[in-house]
Amino acid sequence: MEIILAKKYGFCFGVKRAIKIAEKSPDSSTTGPLIHNNEEINRLKQNFNVTTLKDISTIKSNEKAIIRTHGITKQDFNSLKKRNVDLIDATCPYVAKPQRICQNMSEDGYDIVIFGDENHPEVKGIKSYAKGKVFVVLSVDELKKIGLNKKVAVVSQTTRKIDEFLKVVSYLIQNIREVRVFNTICNATFENQEAARDLAKKADVMIVIGGKNSSNTKQLLIISKEFCENSYLIENELELEKSWFEGKNICGITAGASTPDWIIEKIIKKIKQI
Amino acid sequence: MEIILAKKYGFCFGVKRAIKIAEKSPDSSTTGPLIHNNEEINRLKQNFNVTTLKDISTIKSNEKAIIRTHGITKQDFNSLKKRNVDLIDATCPYVAKPQRICQNMSEDGYDIVIFGDENHPEVKGIKSYAKGKVFVVLSVDELKKIGLNKKVAVVSQTTRKIDEFLKVVSYLIQNIREVRVFNTICNATFENQEAARDLAKKADVMIVIGGKNSSNTKQLLIISKEFCENSYLIENELELEKSWFEGKNICGITAGASTPDWIIEKIIKKIKQI
Repeated sequence: MEIILAKKYGFCFGVKRAIKIAEKSPDSSTTGPLIHNNEEINRLKQNFNVTTLKDISTIKSNEKAIIRTHGITKQDFNSLKKRNVDLIDATCPYVAKPQRICQNMSEDGYDIVIFGDENHPEVKGIKSYAKGKVFVVLSVDELKKIGLNKKVAVVSQTTRKIDEFLKVVSYLIQNIREVRVFNTICNATFENQEAARDLAKKADVMIVIGGKNSSNTKQLLIISKEFCENSYLIENELELEKSWFEGKNICGITAGASTPDWIIEKIIKKIKQI
Repeated sequence: MEIILAKKYGFCFGVKRAIKIAEKSPDSSTTGPLIHNNEEINRLKQNFNVTTLKDISTIKSNEKAIIRTHGITKQDFNSLKKRNVDLIDATCPYVAKPQRICQNMSEDGYDIVIFGDENHPEVKGIKSYAKGKVFVVLSVDELKKIGLNKKVAVVSQTTRKIDEFLKVVSYLIQNIREVRVFNTICNATFENQEAARDLAKKADVMIVIGGKNSSNTKQLLIISKEFCENSYLIENELELEKSWFEGKNICGITAGASTPDWIIEKIIKKIKQI
């Protein structure tokens, strides 16, 4: 039996990924700070000679440039491409997503609303992908000043709070007949749920690890059960039952947002013994 | 004295339309009660021989059947078609819209959430147009028990309150990456209130017609009084008093959502005599 861990549990995926990319690209430079963590940036400079570009126009043809986690504007991307810079994309996939949505939805005739800070590099990047009308707002008051079309698609800067996003979306729903809401806010619960859903679709048995009084863990169980009827919520390895795994090929594992790694490892070890 | 009717009053657009259709289709029968107003249904029966079917299976080939304002299920529609019943569609266009959305979105792979009452004929009709997963809920608690896919489209029963719809939508947005929100709530009540407000601002006397136990009619009186102190709520022409109109230039008239036009006309006629 194959044991597969859900693609996401634990800390921020985009940052981990970007650091790995940088470590594999020594003697390169990044388009602005790779991530918002100076110690890590210093470590990359000392150990891998990965430096930070203050101005992308200074980089030369065939030199290696790593696109920062926050992404860059479409214009900057095209300009670097044109100059034959060797581009390595470390844009966080969760940032690349609203970029794509922005492009696709404006191609489909939707006005775009981005909930976020107009001056943040991530938002500048996302906004640059819109082909029609695009508005960046941080509040309902800002939205009230805008004349929108009948069809609106709304995305959020990945790091915004859901409550504020919902206020903006609620205003839109009350005033616009069709609103396509893409919750592009990055958070562990959300990502865990998506990954559990994907995994449950192919698993024969799903083990959901977490507190039985934990809301987000219970949610993972509901989602898992929808796609894999043999889904079980356990708090520790003592609760495992041999019969769950008999004749099964793929065992999926996911865990709630507050489940420490050592519990997960202990349970995997026990399943392997079974 | 000039008599001005509010720009929106009384029967909503869908009800008026259905009654006109019924009047133009004498000797027909309706698939269940055409609208939720018994007096009007009796009038249609007496004047136009439009009767109410208790069971659609009793209607014969080539007989005329009017589809009620609330719509019918796709299955009933197809069954009537198959039996060559002469179908006349009086489904309110604001009800037909969520039916279409339900069909199109489920064809596009979206799970459907309908915010409404599962037992209401309108909701039964809307639901029947879904081709994939469809869930009817009245609260977030009901929604929590459901395992939804990554893409969800949500519509509302036309007569629901926006506040409650927003609660359901907010929950979805927090748990699902892409939510297509179609605000299918019909704001006839809201529009009646807005029109009463506009009219009361210029009227010297306001006559609000409707049941004294009717919530939406009482709301119209409160709004009218706010802008025109000489505002009166009456149920029929016998309650009119001559003194209300003495020395007045503009008489505004509005009516609650369940007030048929013929009652309103009777009252206008009496005011003109005064």
